[in-house]
Amino acid sequence: MEKMSLTILGCNSALPSISSFQTSQLLSLREKQFMIDCGEGAQIRLRQLKIKASRLNHIFISHLHGDHCFGLIGLISSMGMLGRTSDLVIHSHPDLEGILQPQINYYCADAGYKVIFEPFNPRQHALLYEDRSLQVFSIPLKHRVPTAGFLFSEREKERHIIRDMIDFYQIPVRDIARIKQGADFVREDGEVIPNERLTTAPYPAHKYAYCSDTAYSEKIVPIIEGVDLLYHEATFMQSEIVRAKETAHSSAQQAAEIAKMANVKKLIIGHYSARYDNQSGLLAEARAVFPETHLAFDGMRLDV
Amino acid sequence: MEKMSLTILGCNSALPSISSFQTSQLLSLREKQFMIDCGEGAQIRLRQLKIKASRLNHIFISHLHGDHCFGLIGLISSMGMLGRTSDLVIHSHPDLEGILQPQINYYCADAGYKVIFEPFNPRQHALLYEDRSLQVFSIPLKHRVPTAGFLFSEREKERHIIRDMIDFYQIPVRDIARIKQGADFVREDGEVIPNERLTTAPYPAHKYAYCSDTAYSEKIVPIIEGVDLLYHEATFMQSEIVRAKETAHSSAQQAAEIAKMANVKKLIIGHYSARYDNQSGLLAEARAVFPETHLAFDGMRLDV
Repeated sequence: MEKMSLTILGCNSALPSISSFQTSQLLSLREKQFMIDCGEGAQIRLRQLKIKASRLNHIFISHLHGDHCFGLIGLISSMGMLGRTSDLVIHSHPDLEGILQPQINYYCADAGYKVIFEPFNPRQHALLYEDRSLQVFSIPLKHRVPTAGFLFSEREKERHIIRDMIDFYQIPVRDIARIKQGADFVREDGEVIPNERLTTAPYPAHKYAYCSDTAYSEKIVPIIEGVDLLYHEATFMQSEIVRAKETAHSSAQQAAEIAKMANVKKLIIGHYSARYDNQSGLLAEARAVFPETHLAFDGMRLDV
Repeated sequence: MEKMSLTILGCNSALPSISSFQTSQLLSLREKQFMIDCGEGAQIRLRQLKIKASRLNHIFISHLHGDHCFGLIGLISSMGMLGRTSDLVIHSHPDLEGILQPQINYYCADAGYKVIFEPFNPRQHALLYEDRSLQVFSIPLKHRVPTAGFLFSEREKERHIIRDMIDFYQIPVRDIARIKQGADFVREDGEVIPNERLTTAPYPAHKYAYCSDTAYSEKIVPIIEGVDLLYHEATFMQSEIVRAKETAHSSAQQAAEIAKMANVKKLIIGHYSARYDNQSGLLAEARAVFPETHLAFDGMRLDV
């Protein structure tokens, strides 16, 4: 499974609605799972969507408002009951450990695995995590408490070597890794075979940016430039811009302006205020600025 | 609204299922609401069922396993955002305050109301709460941690005075309250009019007993004797009785035996193990012993 895919587990704002839980998402890439925020009921949505979270080892929490983290203790507890043994790493503002660890100690004393807190500074754009295929960076956002979005950036992939060329030029195994990285092949007689004759372009590396919660902030544009998919909060309509500013949230129009400025391929809006019975107004407002906008809904699954 | 009614907000055991959240219930009586346990997502179910919890002032927590209390912080937080001003009282094992208060301090600093912890000893059968229409008693249960069920006992109601008799005997207003309590009326000439000529029987007082989580325990029978409705956990089938004993839970058959022994009017079973895709086996097993058994499901509403 090469593809990066995103599942929306919850996309409402402060309060849940009839159809939407509070914020949580699951990103899957090459058999690994990453959770972004963990509002109440995230484990319930996983269950309802029949997603096993056994390959979920890293959770990224944008900020410590309850609608983004109240689901953690239930998820952690259930993972223990389901027999998890591997460490679970939670990347968050430093304050989380002091609040969550006492709960884990009390409720999850029997769990056969460890929860490891990896604090980061939400005010800095920094590398939070990397493995062979992925890097995750923080994106400083503008909210009432220290908040960071996350950029999931797939590593540049290797070029595909053309099997017939290996045979034709009798390329030794030891040279193949370098050629996949883009090197030319030098034959024993000194002849140089240029890389483009031996390989085809790699699959493009995918990028996903998550920006919630945040007021309108152009500072994030250089970081999210050109991503395949941007999730940007759109709590309010532009008609509620005063309320949006007061609460450090964005309007749908503002989310679309950021998407346009950053030249992203696709925009998903979410984190809807409970005041909107349906989100068609938010969608229309965003699409007027950035046509490739879609509404998030609980259970939505997208290829990035 | 005279009736006592019960709404099931969640009825699964340790883990949520596709259709059921973890344990929580709402009992309504005469414009007052009482919550029993508060598993994760209780506030979401309230929202989905369009139940406003503005008249919910008392929450009773049976024991401090996560599937019975992880929904508290989300509910408390949302009540604050919705502008609640009246105190919320949580009746529970004494340990809860030490775990929950730091979360309230961190996440709900702006809330305009107070959460008051009323600790009780789950090992004692005691009066926990009373008002003009209701008394709530603890029911010591048999579980892996200190656990209590709850008996909601409506107070004996006043007799109904027959309006025509007030006129006929010219009963003064000052005597009416006593007559409603069962007193005879003494006329000025000394003639005694027996109460049964002046009044009709009151509506019966209702009783609801909640017993979860618990192993089979005959000790609860005298306390729940004759209740209108008993909710008794039935985590397992009798075929899993070894597992039931190990984990201090009950089988459906055992729940029914308790119901029969206590001569209750109706039994609702719940707290299903996630191993059962459907609960028809549990129902059949219980009905073989106690025919007036029903399965709980999320969103179920019953008159007690």
